[in-house]
Amino acid sequence: MTLAVSSTLGEIGEKALLRHLQTRIPTASGVVVGLGDDAAAVETSACTLVTTDSLVESVHFHRDAVPPRLLGRKALSVNLSDLAAMGGIARYATVSLCLPLDLTLGWVDSLYDGLLERAAESGVALVGGNVTRGRDIVVDVTLLGDSGRLLLRAGARPGDRVVVTGQLGAAAEGVRLLAEGARLDEDAELLATGMWTESSAPAVLACLRAQLDPRPPLALARSIAERGLARAGMDLSDGLSLDLVEICSRSGVGAVVEASAVPVDARAAGLERARGGDALGLALHGGEDYQLLLAVGAEELGELAELARVWGVEVTAVGEFVEGEPIVWVRDEAGERPLAPGGHDHFRSGPA
Amino acid sequence: MTLAVSSTLGEIGEKALLRHLQTRIPTASGVVVGLGDDAAAVETSACTLVTTDSLVESVHFHRDAVPPRLLGRKALSVNLSDLAAMGGIARYATVSLCLPLDLTLGWVDSLYDGLLERAAESGVALVGGNVTRGRDIVVDVTLLGDSGRLLLRAGARPGDRVVVTGQLGAAAEGVRLLAEGARLDEDAELLATGMWTESSAPAVLACLRAQLDPRPPLALARSIAERGLARAGMDLSDGLSLDLVEICSRSGVGAVVEASAVPVDARAAGLERARGGDALGLALHGGEDYQLLLAVGAEELGELAELARVWGVEVTAVGEFVEGEPIVWVRDEAGERPLAPGGHDHFRSGPA
Repeated sequence: MTLAVSSTLGEIGEKALLRHLQTRIPTASGVVVGLGDDAAAVETSACTLVTTDSLVESVHFHRDAVPPRLLGRKALSVNLSDLAAMGGIARYATVSLCLPLDLTLGWVDSLYDGLLERAAESGVALVGGNVTRGRDIVVDVTLLGDSGRLLLRAGARPGDRVVVTGQLGAAAEGVRLLAEGARLDEDAELLATGMWTESSAPAVLACLRAQLDPRPPLALARSIAERGLARAGMDLSDGLSLDLVEICSRSGVGAVVEASAVPVDARAAGLERARGGDALGLALHGGEDYQLLLAVGAEELGELAELARVWGVEVTAVGEFVEGEPIVWVRDEAGERPLAPGGHDHFRSGPA
Repeated sequence: MTLAVSSTLGEIGEKALLRHLQTRIPTASGVVVGLGDDAAAVETSACTLVTTDSLVESVHFHRDAVPPRLLGRKALSVNLSDLAAMGGIARYATVSLCLPLDLTLGWVDSLYDGLLERAAESGVALVGGNVTRGRDIVVDVTLLGDSGRLLLRAGARPGDRVVVTGQLGAAAEGVRLLAEGARLDEDAELLATGMWTESSAPAVLACLRAQLDPRPPLALARSIAERGLARAGMDLSDGLSLDLVEICSRSGVGAVVEASAVPVDARAAGLERARGGDALGLALHGGEDYQLLLAVGAEELGELAELARVWGVEVTAVGEFVEGEPIVWVRDEAGERPLAPGGHDHFRSGPA
């Protein structure tokens, strides 16, 4: 049966869609039985990591603002980020989809283009799938991987440095740009919506890409865990303020962050300045950076910096863990005060 | 913080709900790192089975017709059924939830009561979780298990018997009863809705339980795979007509079903007779039986029957695989004709 890309899922039906998607999944090493049976069978090592995360329409994205190919990439990336932040190597993914009946086959194919592309980039085999209809799009990915030396959220000690990778705030600036109407196409290039000047275009592009196609530092994360360069770590998904409280709670310590040390994304900062705002809040509370948040002993900072250079990733010490309650303090020229956690709580915050 | 069961999820927030649910998950053997970090870490053998299946509001269930505890049980049961039908032993589950903000903590706790109960019954550890808000409830479970000798959908040969376990059609009759207003309470007991007579109550109860709290023959499935008593097999989830076409397609054979041999559930048949209907259609096309559909060599039938007796499960040969196109024929007193697949296609059929 030939399926037209303009056919809706309601016309095609679940079984035909599943059969079509199965033909798109390449064979991969380690996969004994792939998609299409009651379960997949995969080769695993003695300790396997498992993580699951979903993207839900109107909560994490709006259908008309995100090209499906980038949605597919991101659905895998947010899980890759979690697995790498445990020190693992991703191997297999299952994808469970809720799809409204008015979506076209072309839309679902583009979603799979993104999933398959990102899977190939990261050495992941898609091994399981489920599709069902639903009012809203839900892309739910479960990722399995080999465990190496584990990097847990607990373990930070007073005196350890608070370290982050990359620059923060660009993904949150991307949310603002999407709300204002800025858009990327399927290839993550800027669409001509007349929303920027020639000089602001590179910054707009970078922030939209940070939001729609995040690139967590997977290789660096694994190397850090392997070498035991961090005593605790997690990925920055809910925002520095909320995620740092999490490391503090798990480790039984507090933390002080130097406001001036926070690596605010330069492109986001420029765009915020132009609208009379300040990007520090985005860097502290914005979320979806998919960078690493680490507790690093002072004696390891040098080796960490060296390793990060090898992988081409920026690392910045932004503060220190301290004895006391799991509270994060921020220090700036006005003094030291508790940093109110303001990151993403998907039950409370509006749709990104 | 004390959370009131009447609090809504909008009042509680995602983080507090996750923390609360984490406190409910017991520790379990094989779990190196459980819920609460970036990923779970679990002990695995050389070959791991993975399967994923979800229950979606208004597609698979209606919120006011299903007690959340039974919904939790079923979300795990449908995955247990898949894993067992591959010959596996379930070990770990992740649960990804979409939850509307107006649900109460009490509702989510009941859902978890069911999940945890069913997990304990089947030796499964809950190791991962994700919650996000959404307009409709989605309960998405991914199940991992140890692989034994695999039981695949491909492998049926001409001359093999078409064998099913249990009786068919009760779950589909349950859908009709729910639509008419019949209800179970959290303990799977019949609620007094005045929808039945004293004599019909046991049948109504049985059919509602088959729909809301299915009990796939997990131990029998494993034993059959272990002993190699079936050449092909899968679980009956979409209905005999649709699932048998699937085995035929994968195996490159056709099949003939004797209408008179199909083990129509006696309670469903009784209720259908009372409304002037016929339960054979439910048994052939109804779906959600979560029994086994097997291709069994004639020489293995005796041993299979013996094994099924040990496990207290009925097995019935309902027909034979034949050479030819992957078409299912049904034979009754009127002769032989192609059986139009009429089972569940969740993109097309109305909500159960």
